[in-house]
Amino acid sequence: GFAMPAIAQSQPKVSWRLASSFPPGLDTIYGGGETLAKYVSEATDGNFTIDVFAAGELVPAFEVVDPVSEGTIEMAHTVGYYFSGKDVAWAAMAAIPFSLNARGMSAWYYYGGGLDITNAFLADYNIVGFPCGNTAAQMGGWFRKEINTVSDLQGLKMRVGFAGNILTKLGVIPQTLPGGEIYNALEKGTIDAAEWVGPYDDEKLGFQKVAPYYYYPGWWEGGPTVHALINKDKFEELPLAYQSLLRTACQATSADMLAKYDYVNPTAIKKLVAAGAQLRPFSPEIMEASFNAANETYAELSASSPHFKTIWHSITAFRKDHYLWNQIAELNYDAFMQSQQRANKL
Amino acid sequence: GFAMPAIAQSQPKVSWRLASSFPPGLDTIYGGGETLAKYVSEATDGNFTIDVFAAGELVPAFEVVDPVSEGTIEMAHTVGYYFSGKDVAWAAMAAIPFSLNARGMSAWYYYGGGLDITNAFLADYNIVGFPCGNTAAQMGGWFRKEINTVSDLQGLKMRVGFAGNILTKLGVIPQTLPGGEIYNALEKGTIDAAEWVGPYDDEKLGFQKVAPYYYYPGWWEGGPTVHALINKDKFEELPLAYQSLLRTACQATSADMLAKYDYVNPTAIKKLVAAGAQLRPFSPEIMEASFNAANETYAELSASSPHFKTIWHSITAFRKDHYLWNQIAELNYDAFMQSQQRANKL
Repeated sequence: GFAMPAIAQSQPKVSWRLASSFPPGLDTIYGGGETLAKYVSEATDGNFTIDVFAAGELVPAFEVVDPVSEGTIEMAHTVGYYFSGKDVAWAAMAAIPFSLNARGMSAWYYYGGGLDITNAFLADYNIVGFPCGNTAAQMGGWFRKEINTVSDLQGLKMRVGFAGNILTKLGVIPQTLPGGEIYNALEKGTIDAAEWVGPYDDEKLGFQKVAPYYYYPGWWEGGPTVHALINKDKFEELPLAYQSLLRTACQATSADMLAKYDYVNPTAIKKLVAAGAQLRPFSPEIMEASFNAANETYAELSASSPHFKTIWHSITAFRKDHYLWNQIAELNYDAFMQSQQRANKL
Repeated sequence: GFAMPAIAQSQPKVSWRLASSFPPGLDTIYGGGETLAKYVSEATDGNFTIDVFAAGELVPAFEVVDPVSEGTIEMAHTVGYYFSGKDVAWAAMAAIPFSLNARGMSAWYYYGGGLDITNAFLADYNIVGFPCGNTAAQMGGWFRKEINTVSDLQGLKMRVGFAGNILTKLGVIPQTLPGGEIYNALEKGTIDAAEWVGPYDDEKLGFQKVAPYYYYPGWWEGGPTVHALINKDKFEELPLAYQSLLRTACQATSADMLAKYDYVNPTAIKKLVAAGAQLRPFSPEIMEASFNAANETYAELSASSPHFKTIWHSITAFRKDHYLWNQIAELNYDAFMQSQQRANKL
């Protein structure tokens, strides 16, 4: 809370609590909360502090929204799709299958109207939200057997998040399991496949030993936006300087998390392959079928959630142009560099 | 300067001047300086202000380093390669041909040791530097005629920056021209080709009318890092809170500039094509020959500049791993989305 009204003192003492949806073991994504807190505290000489609590310390990982809405906790660091049960619009503002990549999401949020559109939605929850992290494109997960055709997906028991709504149309039987139980379930064959995050986080859990086929890309998370969610009243009580600093620090944290993932993932993928992981791309047939199933799902969700319709309509309008431009200079630069990498010339 | 010592007051009045190397017409890249100033001023209630001066207002565009070294101007917003005449290491910290893309540069700076390595170099100039913007992969420029083979480059007069050192090995005759003179030179045929930035900035100058072949990618600028360069004494005199805020605001500005370019370029490329621009990829022959010529050049430069050698060695060590990982989840996600874009399914 405030020690004094904002007018009397430009840097009042403010002590907030942040409930993270992540365990400290996911050090890059959980670390985003700590980075944000560090940036804010340092810039205010320790006058504005944010204490970061790991998943479960204050409230369960996937229940951080309600206390922030109510103001019993000032803010959360989480991913919107955990709350798609409240309204599927929550998922659209984070990542849904075949949405924008990390740079596309950032462009949409800061210049394509995303900040305004998502905050109009979040206002219903008495929440202000800023993008505060991105993992980049994730992997498609670990499979005990190779998956080549859509028929290979029939009856496949897969631990997966929001994409389960779409995979179910292709015959997959989605499973919900905490991260810590995935390994044993794969080992016993209780499940056939599981997605987690990407090489750096996956490598710690040793999945390659029990489900060696490591598929890509994770088409359900092409550039998932992690959010800082802030109680709206608490935010509006802040001096304008602190409000601006929070926004700036979140934008910097997003860049920082992406940089860390981009730095640690290359080493991890090499370790995984050395340890036996078999890299496999999803077949064009599976990608196409998943894309079509996603579009069917989105038509249904647009009819049932007006907020989803608004957010997804805005994202898809930009997506069309983003991938038009993205394949010219950027793709051709990267494709050439990748060809040199494969030729061992880098 | 300071109104009071830092200890007596945590938010002393500080008024700095920033010399930009960019004209206001390049609103995205020039705008990065203004974004930085806004973030810093807002977060300090206007106590720490940075007045942004356009190229030429305080000093000429490409002479901003010396006054910052001397402290007659507190900071500059510029791109290192403008100063490769002092030491080619200046170019390596910004962009040289076939270096990292935008995300790769950010990963290298914040997690791969780039900040420390470049600041060890900048200390010789009494300067502290932070990445403060990125344009993303640029275009390869405008050509009056199609260019298919290396022999088509023989005697070609091209307005180009640092890449001129490499293109000259392929027979190009590099030209130096201010942005405002490019159009007339292309129209008259005084030059045969010119590179500028990318669709958004290029579109304002109407090059498609006089040199319609618009080549990609700009292999000399795969992800150019724009810098905030700060006089080291002035930086160290700042309260620690202001130092941290500057670093955070620069990191946020980098993300913001990339987001703006990513948002405005798609619309611009559509306008350019509608206005007659003919998109052309550089042929594999030209790309390969350029890559080989670049590597020869870097071997020479590493022998002549120890700082270049240190910086480039660090970048290339990471580059190898970056493009290994980059082609797995990220490339395959983007490639699929691009295929859907071309099939008009987005």
